[in-house]
Amino acid sequence: MLKMKQKKQSDKKNLLKHLAVDSFHLKKIRKSSKKAGLPPGALVHVGEKKIEKAVISVVDYNSERVIEKTIESLEACLPLKELPTVTWINIDGLHDIDLIEQVGKLFDIHPLILEDILNTGQRPKIEEHDNHLFIALKSLRYDVESDAIRENQVSIVTGRNYLISFQERPSTLFKPGVDRVHNSKLRIRKRSTDYLTYALLDSVVDHNFAILEILGDKLEMLDAVLMEDVSQENINAVFDLKKKVFSMRKSILPIREIAANLMKGEYDLIDESTLIYYRDVSDHVLQIIEDVEVYREVITSMIDTYLSTLSMKMNEVMKVLTIAAAIFMPLTFLAGIYGMNFKYMPELEMKWGYFTVWGLMIVLIIFMLVIFRRKKWL
Amino acid sequence: MLKMKQKKQSDKKNLLKHLAVDSFHLKKIRKSSKKAGLPPGALVHVGEKKIEKAVISVVDYNSERVIEKTIESLEACLPLKELPTVTWINIDGLHDIDLIEQVGKLFDIHPLILEDILNTGQRPKIEEHDNHLFIALKSLRYDVESDAIRENQVSIVTGRNYLISFQERPSTLFKPGVDRVHNSKLRIRKRSTDYLTYALLDSVVDHNFAILEILGDKLEMLDAVLMEDVSQENINAVFDLKKKVFSMRKSILPIREIAANLMKGEYDLIDESTLIYYRDVSDHVLQIIEDVEVYREVITSMIDTYLSTLSMKMNEVMKVLTIAAAIFMPLTFLAGIYGMNFKYMPELEMKWGYFTVWGLMIVLIIFMLVIFRRKKWL
Amino acid sequence: MLKMKQKKQSDKKNLLKHLAVDSFHLKKIRKSSKKAGLPPGALVHVGEKKIEKAVISVVDYNSERVIEKTIESLEACLPLKELPTVTWINIDGLHDIDLIEQVGKLFDIHPLILEDILNTGQRPKIEEHDNHLFIALKSLRYDVESDAIRENQVSIVTGRNYLISFQERPSTLFKPGVDRVHNSKLRIRKRSTDYLTYALLDSVVDHNFAILEILGDKLEMLDAVLMEDVSQENINAVFDLKKKVFSMRKSILPIREIAANLMKGEYDLIDESTLIYYRDVSDHVLQIIEDVEVYREVITSMIDTYLSTLSMKMNEVMKVLTIAAAIFMPLTFLAGIYGMNFKYMPELEMKWGYFTVWGLMIVLIIFMLVIFRRKKWL
Amino acid sequence: MLKMKQKKQSDKKNLLKHLAVDSFHLKKIRKSSKKAGLPPGALVHVGEKKIEKAVISVVDYNSERVIEKTIESLEACLPLKELPTVTWINIDGLHDIDLIEQVGKLFDIHPLILEDILNTGQRPKIEEHDNHLFIALKSLRYDVESDAIRENQVSIVTGRNYLISFQERPSTLFKPGVDRVHNSKLRIRKRSTDYLTYALLDSVVDHNFAILEILGDKLEMLDAVLMEDVSQENINAVFDLKKKVFSMRKSILPIREIAANLMKGEYDLIDESTLIYYRDVSDHVLQIIEDVEVYREVITSMIDTYLSTLSMKMNEVMKVLTIAAAIFMPLTFLAGIYGMNFKYMPELEMKWGYFTVWGLMIVLIIFMLVIFRRKKWL
Amino acid sequence: MLKMKQKKQSDKKNLLKHLAVDSFHLKKIRKSSKKAGLPPGALVHVGEKKIEKAVISVVDYNSERVIEKTIESLEACLPLKELPTVTWINIDGLHDIDLIEQVGKLFDIHPLILEDILNTGQRPKIEEHDNHLFIALKSLRYDVESDAIRENQVSIVTGRNYLISFQERPSTLFKPGVDRVHNSKLRIRKRSTDYLTYALLDSVVDHNFAILEILGDKLEMLDAVLMEDVSQENINAVFDLKKKVFSMRKSILPIREIAANLMKGEYDLIDESTLIYYRDVSDHVLQIIEDVEVYREVITSMIDTYLSTLSMKMNEVMKVLTIAAAIFMPLTFLAGIYGMNFKYMPELEMKWGYFTVWGLMIVLIIFMLVIFRRKKWL
Repeated sequence: MLKMKQKKQSDKKNLLKHLAVDSFHLKKIRKSSKKAGLPPGALVHVGEKKIEKAVISVVDYNSERVIEKTIESLEACLPLKELPTVTWINIDGLHDIDLIEQVGKLFDIHPLILEDILNTGQRPKIEEHDNHLFIALKSLRYDVESDAIRENQVSIVTGRNYLISFQERPSTLFKPGVDRVHNSKLRIRKRSTDYLTYALLDSVVDHNFAILEILGDKLEMLDAVLMEDVSQENINAVFDLKKKVFSMRKSILPIREIAANLMKGEYDLIDESTLIYYRDVSDHVLQIIEDVEVYREVITSMIDTYLSTLSMKMNEVMKVLTIAAAIFMPLTFLAGIYGMNFKYMPELEMKWGYFTVWGLMIVLIIFMLVIFRRKKWL
Repeated sequence: MLKMKQKKQSDKKNLLKHLAVDSFHLKKIRKSSKKAGLPPGALVHVGEKKIEKAVISVVDYNSERVIEKTIESLEACLPLKELPTVTWINIDGLHDIDLIEQVGKLFDIHPLILEDILNTGQRPKIEEHDNHLFIALKSLRYDVESDAIRENQVSIVTGRNYLISFQERPSTLFKPGVDRVHNSKLRIRKRSTDYLTYALLDSVVDHNFAILEILGDKLEMLDAVLMEDVSQENINAVFDLKKKVFSMRKSILPIREIAANLMKGEYDLIDESTLIYYRDVSDHVLQIIEDVEVYREVITSMIDTYLSTLSMKMNEVMKVLTIAAAIFMPLTFLAGIYGMNFKYMPELEMKWGYFTVWGLMIVLIIFMLVIFRRKKWL
Repeated sequence: MLKMKQKKQSDKKNLLKHLAVDSFHLKKIRKSSKKAGLPPGALVHVGEKKIEKAVISVVDYNSERVIEKTIESLEACLPLKELPTVTWINIDGLHDIDLIEQVGKLFDIHPLILEDILNTGQRPKIEEHDNHLFIALKSLRYDVESDAIRENQVSIVTGRNYLISFQERPSTLFKPGVDRVHNSKLRIRKRSTDYLTYALLDSVVDHNFAILEILGDKLEMLDAVLMEDVSQENINAVFDLKKKVFSMRKSILPIREIAANLMKGEYDLIDESTLIYYRDVSDHVLQIIEDVEVYREVITSMIDTYLSTLSMKMNEVMKVLTIAAAIFMPLTFLAGIYGMNFKYMPELEMKWGYFTVWGLMIVLIIFMLVIFRRKKWL
Repeated sequence: MLKMKQKKQSDKKNLLKHLAVDSFHLKKIRKSSKKAGLPPGALVHVGEKKIEKAVISVVDYNSERVIEKTIESLEACLPLKELPTVTWINIDGLHDIDLIEQVGKLFDIHPLILEDILNTGQRPKIEEHDNHLFIALKSLRYDVESDAIRENQVSIVTGRNYLISFQERPSTLFKPGVDRVHNSKLRIRKRSTDYLTYALLDSVVDHNFAILEILGDKLEMLDAVLMEDVSQENINAVFDLKKKVFSMRKSILPIREIAANLMKGEYDLIDESTLIYYRDVSDHVLQIIEDVEVYREVITSMIDTYLSTLSMKMNEVMKVLTIAAAIFMPLTFLAGIYGMNFKYMPELEMKWGYFTVWGLMIVLIIFMLVIFRRKKWL
Repeated sequence: MLKMKQKKQSDKKNLLKHLAVDSFHLKKIRKSSKKAGLPPGALVHVGEKKIEKAVISVVDYNSERVIEKTIESLEACLPLKELPTVTWINIDGLHDIDLIEQVGKLFDIHPLILEDILNTGQRPKIEEHDNHLFIALKSLRYDVESDAIRENQVSIVTGRNYLISFQERPSTLFKPGVDRVHNSKLRIRKRSTDYLTYALLDSVVDHNFAILEILGDKLEMLDAVLMEDVSQENINAVFDLKKKVFSMRKSILPIREIAANLMKGEYDLIDESTLIYYRDVSDHVLQIIEDVEVYREVITSMIDTYLSTLSMKMNEVMKVLTIAAAIFMPLTFLAGIYGMNFKYMPELEMKWGYFTVWGLMIVLIIFMLVIFRRKKWL
């Protein structure tokens, strides 16, 4: 077994810096263990604290008017809750447990759901409750700087006339949604929370196409680069890409189930006329999954091609070595023979001895070359 | 990580030229990302602009007469729409969004469907709506020049007495369909749009057999060529073929679901007497999928055979090298010994020294050969 | 890309001769493409013309009497059709389209079925129609001469009191069926066409056991041979066997569905008392599929074993080479040193110089051998 | 292709001796082909004749008394059949077709079932008939002598108050069952044939744990042995074990279905109070299947570990070779230079020439060692 | 075959010490075989005896009070059983068969369940009986000392107002459960045995997150370490980790079914208001399974990366060797030529012969270097 226990923690942290990518999932898994042992429903924020203070923003609209504001405390949105308008509360940042608990009380949300919202290692899922629908999602983002895919947990609680969305950290994810609400001509203004839910879901899903595009670009680059220069660095980049693609697949696969469930129209809060939109989301999810499959296949083929190239090059190298050895070893031996200092070596005295040996050697070389050509090694 | 960010765009384009085949799918995926963020139902043509101007052609027929014409604007076909005859409108080219929107209004097509028609990265699917059936398909075509499989998105909207087909670019795909309509003796003339839908579906599906044939020919050629000449070029051709076969599979797999759904006879617009024809389509799709599986297995076997051949050749090469080294190294050493210039080397003075050494060497060679023969290396 | 386009057709045909086995499936696939583009229901014989003239034979029986004859034209069997006896018409050879069309008219068979009968690339399937049941099958035959598995398409149309079977070419496949009919004591004489259908199906399925036996013999031979002599030829034979086993699997898999459907007893023409026999067929099909799986696993293990053997042999070879080099290179170098012609080399003048060097060399050899033994290379 | 046809049969038999293990399944498959072509229901014993004479033993019991005897002919048990007691007839040996036919007549068993009983290549299955339940099973036994797993076909026909079990050859398989019947305190005596059926099934299933234990021991041994000594022999033993495990899996998998069917309680003959026992059998079957999976995974890991070890060793060997060559080749060349016999070679005349060369050589050696250490080859 | 039979038992035990990890599952499998042949329901403790004496502890609570005590004999808890309070009896240690039988009698538990409780090789499962629910589970624990994952079988029998839990050996597993019961504010005190069952299940499941964390840490360490130092030791550690991950998967997979069954709400004893908690457990199980999948993929990628690195290094080594050989072999040959002692070698007499040869050699070296650079070997 490895003797790694003695290594100091500092040493380990140092290692981790180089592992930004690989530890992507491992970290997420570790987060969940923080909770083990606590009573169910006990609220603990499982995950890194990603922003300083939770930001609460409210959008309240119906077909006639839109109100948008950032509020300090949740009480400010209570009056809106009572109105028949659609009230969309977005909370960025999950570490303020009091706030989440307050939301839970105000909107009568089951403690287990609050727990799921806070646990950023939560698996994507959909659950129907008495008066609301709960959807947990993963939004992916490609972080150019660290060349890594980052997850952002998004939770949506949809009630009859309100929708509360939670994100780990502020993002531009819901920006298009807010913009659409401001445009009084769009369908979103005439419809209820079920359509808003769809719009947010759609944003999260469609975001993945951009990541696919980035990965696709990298794939093309790597494919071209690998043909020229098979360095360890490039190989590692391919394997790294493979892990990224695999992690995307893992994040998106559970959304398929969510979309499939929504499409069936079994949830009371989802109006039948909205079902067609959910069918659209489902289509996109399927397409992303299929595209991810294509990427995996392409990467696997790339690795296979590369490995077979390596084998072939090795063969090439070995042939050169063998030909060199098979030609020069006998010749050197021959030269060695006549370099011996025996007193009685009749050949040495012959006049044409030297040239005869040269002749012999040349015949030998030609003979070898013919043989290797026959074996198709040349 | 790769330092590829600094490479200029121009450089990248240059690379892409060599990647025609590999980037086949990647490009398609990228197309979809153009839309991310837009409100659902907003019409944008996602895909390359493949022809200059959309071409609209109309075929109107019943069992008694056929009218075929190319029209400039959609209004020209309005009178035909009202007639009880079958009106088949084919539109080649998807970039004219106004035209598509006009079609949507005239035939009361849901905006999400129009969006699917315009998005050439759309996954094949079937959807039933109030008054029409929507089918999205991929038609494949083998482009000899670039040695690549090209996709052409085909969308079909089937109503009670009209059928509208959309293609990315003009093709001969529907030529046999038009020809059949002109033949008054054929079944197609006596039947309604459900049969016409079948005929078009059948054309799209059967087109794949021709591609399978081309790929099959290549496979045979490559298999024969690889036996003779294992060059990197040929290996790459095999991997390239594998990718092509995989991409075919991906395009055809979703059609299986479509055919299965049609066969069930759950759609109002499909008359029960036509179901048997859809069963036929389903059969063909299954057969193509199975054939594609066979191709994949054959290619995998080819690669495995090739790799094991490579290993065996390497072994062969190594044996030659080792035999050469094991025989000549001791001999050269021996010759070296008697090439030393020590003053007192009794053997050098002996009369038969030289010949004794030769004898010794020959014994050594024979001994080595016997050993290697025993080891079955010779 | 390969420059294979310029190669002449004759050249290609030459290649194909060597590819008898590999092109087995490819050819079959290609056959289907002949039809692409034709209107559905248009009868074309897709496949090779395997015999000169179609042969029609009739067996008519009930529990009291049997009539068996070979007839020239179909009309000759019309009177039999009207009788309540079981009329079994067997047609060998599918190229006579007029004949098939005539059968279609006489027995009221749907054109699409006739098309399936003629298309020898047809996938095995079962379909129920108004007054008959249609079953398409593949019968396999091992052709010793070309060492290949040959397919023979068998179609069965079962009506209330008649059964028509079609084969691509004459075979002994239905011989046991005919013999049984002649034996008045057997169950077959007392039962109707559903039992006859079962008997024919059973013949087709059980034929595969003989092929499995042949492949099993080859497998055993190869396994034994490979242990002794790992030649390229034998490796290829293993891969060839793998392809054969795979092609068997592909032909038999769809029969499982057919048997499963028949077992369910949903077809009107199949009497409930016959269901148990179909259960038997289903059992046999499952067993063949499982046996084929075993073969695949055994072959895979064989290849893996062989490859690991190859690796181990390579290791062995490399060790011999390395040991030889590591021992003789330093020695030759030492001999080279004292073969130098410097004027002032004190060792050369010493009396015991030569013997000292020999001693040194022997010590070196022993040292090396000890090291290699410690490394377990010896 | 292999030229194996000419080899004489005697030669083949010779080979087969060495193939005891591999031919395990192949043989079984071959047995089935003996029957192909016979009318269904025609009784032929398919399999080796394993004992001289069939042995019939009868156990008749109710909660009050037990009668156990070995009888010569079946008629002897007729009186017992009429009693309301449980009559268990066990027949060892399947070659006496008359006997089996007699059983069939006496207990009114369908000819197809008799056929299944006689066909020792029969797939495990369960079938319900009018007045009895038919279960076909494979009992496995580890034959220490030949180091092979042997199959023994066990068939059970369960009627209302009788149970007939058939085995290919006598075994101790049902010994515990008989013992239990003799113990008047056990549940078995108070219950009917459904419980007896369970007891027999349980015996057959639990027998596999003993085999798993043996294979587990071998696996552990091999794992330890492989770490020390990677001989071809040991590798082959691993692959052999893999085949054994795979064959176990194949034999047990169909029993899962049987157990699942029995658990459902759909069979009339199985009383509801017995269902819990069948659930227990089902549990054991699942556990065996999972354990077999673990074995497969462990073996695969073993092979992978071994292959990667081999690669690493090869690397090691190559490094030694390369280091030796890279150090001594230049040195030998240098020595060769000053071994040349040119008349005018100024260095040879210098006083310190010889020592300078030595110095040079030592510098070279050190330089090389530094380089290789930098490359981490040392 | 291996000659391992002769090895003494003592020898084998010696081997087993080194196999602590690998024999993890094998041992478990072997345990089950101890029982084969016994009548069903006969109680035997299958497994190692892990503690000296079984420890019985009782917690009895309702919303008002909690009683906790360790009792000597089971009778002591009889009075509590009659009360309407929740009585939770925990038994640590399974070897005291009399005790288990007594529990069986007191609480009317079916003998087959008692058997399952005692069989520590039992597969996780859930069964509903007349008056109680039986759940068998595996609790995993990471044993730091032996670096192995240890299983602890946990069985839970849930009745209307009592719950009996059994463990192989004492553990801290249920400590949080007991603590929660003591806290009168928690939900657990207000609810019945169905909630307690959930709490225990939750403890068992959540325990796995801690193990995942440990494995994740090891994975990261190994990944970093492997980049630096590819020793056999580290490779083995990776394969060892792979086995651990696989064994975790095997232990957790069946819990998925259990959770799924509980979620459905089909069990009488589980109140509908508790279902949401079981849904939570199901979520956690799914997440663990997915995380385990990620680990497997990451490990597979690690091994692949490592193997491709190895191939590349081998290529590197071979190139160095080949370049060295290809340069120095011809040179040494040349030097050998002019070291020959022929009487008539005109070059030797030339004044500039020596320097010409040097020149020639240098040209040769440069020529070789250019060639290798062209081949991109340098």
